[in-house]
Amino acid sequence: MLPGLKAGFTLDARLEADSEPVIWLGLCELRIMNDKRWPWLLLIPQRPGVEEIHDLTPLDQAMLTFEANLTAQALKKITACTKINTAALGNIVRQLHVHVVARTEGDAAWPGPVWGHGPREPYERDDLGRFAEAIRAAL
Amino acid sequence: MLPGLKAGFTLDARLEADSEPVIWLGLCELRIMNDKRWPWLLLIPQRPGVEEIHDLTPLDQAMLTFEANLTAQALKKITACTKINTAALGNIVRQLHVHVVARTEGDAAWPGPVWGHGPREPYERDDLGRFAEAIRAAL
Repeated sequence: MLPGLKAGFTLDARLEADSEPVIWLGLCELRIMNDKRWPWLLLIPQRPGVEEIHDLTPLDQAMLTFEANLTAQALKKITACTKINTAALGNIVRQLHVHVVARTEGDAAWPGPVWGHGPREPYERDDLGRFAEAIRAAL
Repeated sequence: MLPGLKAGFTLDARLEADSEPVIWLGLCELRIMNDKRWPWLLLIPQRPGVEEIHDLTPLDQAMLTFEANLTAQALKKITACTKINTAALGNIVRQLHVHVVARTEGDAAWPGPVWGHGPREPYERDDLGRFAEAIRAAL
């Protein structure tokens, strides 16, 4: 392959370190943020070099909307949360990723945002597996 | 009209107090958050009683994606910002609204989120008008 050409998609190292895989959807990989303070999912479109939602093709944008919808509904169903928070920020990790977070009145950052709110608190391995299984079942 | 039936859409009083109108799009009213610390727009779908993106119809979701795309591109064009932050949170104001914020390295909250970051700093009236005009021209 010629230098500079990128055949495939490589997950950003920081996203890989902070989250665990759940399932592959049509456009995105769905992952769990490994932070037990909030039920927190990430959708990562498998498109190399894309940083902004508006840099996706119109079809990919429609797919992302559809997959974010599915994910939000599944998360709301299994958590019975007060509110879903959906966001594409990317100030720190530029690779496009969409946060879908279940928020409940009185949670660790309520009613403020979850980003930048102290250090991540990893799950026990079994708890993370159970959460992933519940999400897969609810999708 | 029968009690309990809601004919039209009424903008949440807090959104109305904190932001100023820019233009009506197909689904949403586009408004400027009256906080000069960041170029910050709000998209408010004109659908009564909706709190979550996934509670919109599929067509409305597609429209919202399209309008958020237009808005983000216009905002990026006029600000030359580092990164667009797009989010639907709603922990405080439940009426569905989507934030589209232009973030630049070193801005008042960089790289953290803008929500809950100290008190709002209103624009001078002329500056707000110029910003609204620039957005309308870029759309």
